[in-house]
Amino acid sequence: MSHLVKPHGGGELKPLRLEGAARKTELARAKALKQVKMSSRETGDLIMMGIGGFTPLDGFMTKADWQGVCDGMKTSSGLFWPIPVTLSTDDESIKDGDDIALVGGESGEIMGTMKVTEKYTIDKAHECMQVYKTTDIKHPGIKMVMAQGKYNLAGPVKVLSDGGFKAKYGAQFMTPAETRAAFEKMGWSKVAAFQTRNPMHRSHEYLVKIAIETMDGVLIHSLLGALKPGDIPAEVRSEAISTLVENYFAPNTVIQAGYPLDMRYAGPREALLHALFRQNYGCSHLIVGRDHAGVGDYYGPFDAQKIFDEIPKGSLETQNMNIDWTFWCKKCGGMASRRTCPHTKDDRILLSGTKVRAMLSEGQDLPVEFSRPEVAAVLKKYYASLTKEQNVKIELKGHSAA
Amino acid sequence: MSHLVKPHGGGELKPLRLEGAARKTELARAKALKQVKMSSRETGDLIMMGIGGFTPLDGFMTKADWQGVCDGMKTSSGLFWPIPVTLSTDDESIKDGDDIALVGGESGEIMGTMKVTEKYTIDKAHECMQVYKTTDIKHPGIKMVMAQGKYNLAGPVKVLSDGGFKAKYGAQFMTPAETRAAFEKMGWSKVAAFQTRNPMHRSHEYLVKIAIETMDGVLIHSLLGALKPGDIPAEVRSEAISTLVENYFAPNTVIQAGYPLDMRYAGPREALLHALFRQNYGCSHLIVGRDHAGVGDYYGPFDAQKIFDEIPKGSLETQNMNIDWTFWCKKCGGMASRRTCPHTKDDRILLSGTKVRAMLSEGQDLPVEFSRPEVAAVLKKYYASLTKEQNVKIELKGHSAA
Repeated sequence: MSHLVKPHGGGELKPLRLEGAARKTELARAKALKQVKMSSRETGDLIMMGIGGFTPLDGFMTKADWQGVCDGMKTSSGLFWPIPVTLSTDDESIKDGDDIALVGGESGEIMGTMKVTEKYTIDKAHECMQVYKTTDIKHPGIKMVMAQGKYNLAGPVKVLSDGGFKAKYGAQFMTPAETRAAFEKMGWSKVAAFQTRNPMHRSHEYLVKIAIETMDGVLIHSLLGALKPGDIPAEVRSEAISTLVENYFAPNTVIQAGYPLDMRYAGPREALLHALFRQNYGCSHLIVGRDHAGVGDYYGPFDAQKIFDEIPKGSLETQNMNIDWTFWCKKCGGMASRRTCPHTKDDRILLSGTKVRAMLSEGQDLPVEFSRPEVAAVLKKYYASLTKEQNVKIELKGHSAA
Repeated sequence: MSHLVKPHGGGELKPLRLEGAARKTELARAKALKQVKMSSRETGDLIMMGIGGFTPLDGFMTKADWQGVCDGMKTSSGLFWPIPVTLSTDDESIKDGDDIALVGGESGEIMGTMKVTEKYTIDKAHECMQVYKTTDIKHPGIKMVMAQGKYNLAGPVKVLSDGGFKAKYGAQFMTPAETRAAFEKMGWSKVAAFQTRNPMHRSHEYLVKIAIETMDGVLIHSLLGALKPGDIPAEVRSEAISTLVENYFAPNTVIQAGYPLDMRYAGPREALLHALFRQNYGCSHLIVGRDHAGVGDYYGPFDAQKIFDEIPKGSLETQNMNIDWTFWCKKCGGMASRRTCPHTKDDRILLSGTKVRAMLSEGQDLPVEFSRPEVAAVLKKYYASLTKEQNVKIELKGHSAA
């Protein structure tokens, strides 16, 4: 009997992928259909629907859903949802009622099919302001929205591919059903998700360990989709995290896995989405640190924590576990946060992302209070493998992991 | 509007003390009544009823309550209660219906009155087995039960004194109404109580800081009643804790206070009582570490955590926050517990209580990874003030704080 949180919406997990013969038949049918090329973000969303991570969605959102989600974080059926999950196209020929094939923009692979129930236009700037709180085109999420096609297409989807994630990441690419089964096998019910798109330094290790001290276990859940230029690639990050787990975590306290979405960098709204799909993965909590899912200075450092108090009670079963800015403090002689350390900035070992990158690129050691030597070694090896030009282009994000 | 947990039983706080004119009148009446001398434990229980800490009890328990509490942790009215709160006497002359004056055994002060509704005998060995899981007279709790009078007296009480705790401890002796008011002023609703009867070393600081990282604040709540011989006196402990808080805690994260009960050393059952009265003090959680409220080897190190899973759901609103054995680990380079440290015993700085005492008595420094130098200095001063003979008698309890 499971004591895990229920999937979002309160029903069963709803993976939209077809398998076996049904998949074969649908794939054959799809080959004859008009094709719509998906962006990387749309591809990630489709795969997520395929594995049940976006339960209980049936497909890409309608205009009413889009409007409700932008303005009140609710689909037209009243389901809590913080960020639009939409598909776009510039194709004038597609009409309501069409069956279309959904094609990976980069791979060209037919990844799914959709019955178009609605073709509509949106006010992109409105989505940007409501969801991202900005229309600044330098914001990578705004860039994504603005690059969408002229029309949105809504409709139920059938998913035919996982986009190669399973082949590429193996056991680390776990579906919600798989993480749930793993948690149950471990006897876990209070499980925190640690969302990360960066390697883990000691500040992140500390966040996770606080959760371990007080819960049954932690899912270290890495984004495997696309990042902004300069973020550490998934393979390197994954190796760095595995190294950390092997050397510094007790057995049976963490599970390391990844999920297929792209980052939107929507800060608070994305933190809610992160909690929502973690509920589908079976996590009762999401660790929300400083500037969760943020970029630049678009969001206040703790806006992503506060938004959980602003949504209607019961919107999500998965709760936020807020943790303040974390660091090594010399006077404390240990890891701490601003909630547990009374000392001053000068007592704390804080390195900017730029500084960390510079040190690693030059083959320098990071302070052991900042990063585990085993983790730093993985990163040094990666930076050493880059050409000088690649190195210059990289802007490593500092403290925030999420 | 309060978001604090409700007092036990779900109603209002029920302090049984009289004040002002009502107290004066009752005290005058009490002087003419037959006196019953209370033991130190009974005195603490009476004071606790006076300040509302044992809400919703009306007085000392009846035989049916005693039986229900021993056998099923329930009073005759169905109220969850894990340990008998009884008054005893050897006085043959007291009868049902008598009004009696309750007198502090040591002070001789008239501290309350009681209408005797029932005079009854108990099977002390049964209480010991049910509540303490032993009848070994070397157990300090068993010694207390066995030293009780031949008869128990039940009845509603009126409390006339706080036993001098307020005069002695000033602002640190807070009533449940006062801690609740303090929490509300701070805007706290998730508040963990840290129960302690010992000075706080780094392992205890770590327990409290984990709670601070994840909750609104912590009540460091020291026992001010009687301890077994060799435990550190309340004034010294209080100074050591204040020193720690001043130097190593961020402002507005902890409140330091004390409560008037004696230790019973009943392990798991006492952990439940600790949670129960913390609910009255407004705490949503009780930190339960290793061997909470234990003594010697009578209880498994985590029995006091497990018992919270064994009681009927809803028995208490206040929840246990379990934390494993904590220590400094050299390989981790920080504080950790067995849940967060994968390394071996040899990597950990673990000092027995006997060892700590020996070092302090000899004026040696404790490792900074074990104890804050400021805290060790307070303890060293105390040990230096003891005569050699006193020093030899002291058996310091090692790691367990509670």
